[in-house]
Amino acid sequence: MTTVEDASRPSRLADPDEGISIEELGLAARNHALPLEALRYDVTPVGLHYLLIHYDIPDLDAGRHLLTVDGRVERPLTLDLAALRERPRVTRRVTLECAGNGRALLTPRPVSQPWLSEAVGTAEWTGTPLAPLLREAGLAADAVDVVFTGADHGVERGVEQDYQRGLPVSEALREEVLLAYEMNGAPLLPQHGAPLRLVVPGWYGMAHVKWLTRITVLDREFDGYQNAVAYRLRTSADDPGVPVTRIEPRALVQPPGFPDFMSRTRVVRPGPCTVEGRAWSGYAPLTAVEVTTDGGVSWAPATLDPATPTGHLGNDSGPGAGSVGRRSPESAPDGPVVDERWAWRRWRYEWSATPGRYTLGARATDASGRTQPIEQPWNRGGFANNLVQRVAVVVTAER
Amino acid sequence: MTTVEDASRPSRLADPDEGISIEELGLAARNHALPLEALRYDVTPVGLHYLLIHYDIPDLDAGRHLLTVDGRVERPLTLDLAALRERPRVTRRVTLECAGNGRALLTPRPVSQPWLSEAVGTAEWTGTPLAPLLREAGLAADAVDVVFTGADHGVERGVEQDYQRGLPVSEALREEVLLAYEMNGAPLLPQHGAPLRLVVPGWYGMAHVKWLTRITVLDREFDGYQNAVAYRLRTSADDPGVPVTRIEPRALVQPPGFPDFMSRTRVVRPGPCTVEGRAWSGYAPLTAVEVTTDGGVSWAPATLDPATPTGHLGNDSGPGAGSVGRRSPESAPDGPVVDERWAWRRWRYEWSATPGRYTLGARATDASGRTQPIEQPWNRGGFANNLVQRVAVVVTAER
Repeated sequence: MTTVEDASRPSRLADPDEGISIEELGLAARNHALPLEALRYDVTPVGLHYLLIHYDIPDLDAGRHLLTVDGRVERPLTLDLAALRERPRVTRRVTLECAGNGRALLTPRPVSQPWLSEAVGTAEWTGTPLAPLLREAGLAADAVDVVFTGADHGVERGVEQDYQRGLPVSEALREEVLLAYEMNGAPLLPQHGAPLRLVVPGWYGMAHVKWLTRITVLDREFDGYQNAVAYRLRTSADDPGVPVTRIEPRALVQPPGFPDFMSRTRVVRPGPCTVEGRAWSGYAPLTAVEVTTDGGVSWAPATLDPATPTGHLGNDSGPGAGSVGRRSPESAPDGPVVDERWAWRRWRYEWSATPGRYTLGARATDASGRTQPIEQPWNRGGFANNLVQRVAVVVTAER
Repeated sequence: MTTVEDASRPSRLADPDEGISIEELGLAARNHALPLEALRYDVTPVGLHYLLIHYDIPDLDAGRHLLTVDGRVERPLTLDLAALRERPRVTRRVTLECAGNGRALLTPRPVSQPWLSEAVGTAEWTGTPLAPLLREAGLAADAVDVVFTGADHGVERGVEQDYQRGLPVSEALREEVLLAYEMNGAPLLPQHGAPLRLVVPGWYGMAHVKWLTRITVLDREFDGYQNAVAYRLRTSADDPGVPVTRIEPRALVQPPGFPDFMSRTRVVRPGPCTVEGRAWSGYAPLTAVEVTTDGGVSWAPATLDPATPTGHLGNDSGPGAGSVGRRSPESAPDGPVVDERWAWRRWRYEWSATPGRYTLGARATDASGRTQPIEQPWNRGGFANNLVQRVAVVVTAER
């Protein structure tokens, strides 16, 4: 008697000396990371932004796609894409990171999507703000969570499901939250949620539900799989844990010099070398980025590019915040204003490279006091892990 | 004393029970495959096409980019992008596959980019034919190989290099070979070789040099790293081997039903199930695709979509062939004709699914007599390996 459960196995931790399995590799081949040299781009070019797709990319027809708003609302709504496009239009530059970024570097390793350090990307998302739509539908006074349902369908640890995530009403009503139908100025690509996805600036990627079909308001906390089982910080399998929410601060080094094909070790010539990269936090504005060239023994301050004049990444803001920001470099002077408060910031460090072997890394700190650890912050799902990156560099004797 | 060689290690085979290493995973995170559900698209959407980048994606300025043609030619040439765009413009739909596709499934496993079965994609490449340009430069009578140099720079097994590949003059003069500056109707993306790349229909991906800066005609066989060392079929480390050239036939199944997140095992309901996918060969027109549901014990014929009326994948063709093909579905009736002879073809098989566990696969055969093996065709680099794919399926008892 074969059942849906036969396709799944329970979650597990890898054995101490167990290499990456073929199943983990299968996920790595599908769900790609940002090639680190792409940290050079303010906005990640199409196709280089990280991807995490739980099941299959659905085959949806934008012309027939409908979004339903129901549950604890006074006036349930159904909108097609044309109706959503007629609503107020906003573009935000937002950095997204997968909650499992860094998982494959943990010991013991939770067996799941085996990210190293680069499951991140920054895009300009265009869409219409969610909050006014919820207000039009009329939230009931007892509303607690808002559930977003995607069209991707699969099994996970034996549970058949459409991908669904609940968000507390207070977060769903933030003016920054978008129903996005464009990415980098073009219609959404299939793999990024076409024709419609949620964007929740500051939160890890699991909240940004792709292929969005339904928004349901509940009078209780959502107890679906992705909230109650999957995305939780647990110390053990029987710990109920706490929810994964916003993005911990992280800085990534754009690796200097040129790489070895297999090891990705970098070769740098001796002399002055600008080490640069990006940093972000979903909690609060960044206050510092520091750089190490000795794997975290010693640190030196990096220069952080100014925040945009009108706001900070991680700043909560009230109604009207959608109109602040600065114009996109690509836009005409009279083009739309792009809100960049939720995007990564560039940093630089002038390194005097002398021959030898080095391990480069960077550490971001934000105004909430959060920073990045040198020792791994372990949890059973491998979530919200912002261990400092390690970039192996050989500085040659020869110039 | 540190040197460039310190960034590299010699090539090796994995130990019999060695899982995928962190270094292999690092390559898998960068160089992604085609998610198999994307076999549904005739032309692979941007960002889903497989990628194999030896070093870093270079940061090139299309406005300043120059292509030099030199070596054994009567009139060396230097052209910018504007000059290339003024030349005759051709669009070809071409399936590209990485020569190392399937490598991570081999035993013993060559340690390199750890592809499973899906390092493939089909794009519409637009550019100008190479052959007329070579004729204008005036090939010397003693010309043997044409070397294509890319701007990507790195180290590989201790050898510092710009990526370079040589192609026999007879291949370089095929009318199908393009200098491409657009992909799927838009300027090339950075990761696909912007602003200019070579496209050699029928050959594995290593021949399609990206970030093309120079074309050099030699009076001898090119003995650079990527021809003489890397891309060769060898039985052992000291076997000089033979060059990797054209794409062996392969069929891939677009996995039916829906997946389990971790195992990617498919769940299918009992009843009629259309199993479909794509097949291709770089040698000769396809003659058959067969399907197995029992891991290769028994086979049944699939229905192969007709070849385009004007040609076949793998057909060599003379001057003027660039004008044949059929109009792209996206094109206006008076739009450009797209040559599809080098693109994959769709196939279908009507399966009556009854409850149980299955291993699906498909096998392509071409007019040259080449087909796909059930037992692995092993070589030390893991190249040109077209072992039949295995898709695990659970057909549930419940409808």
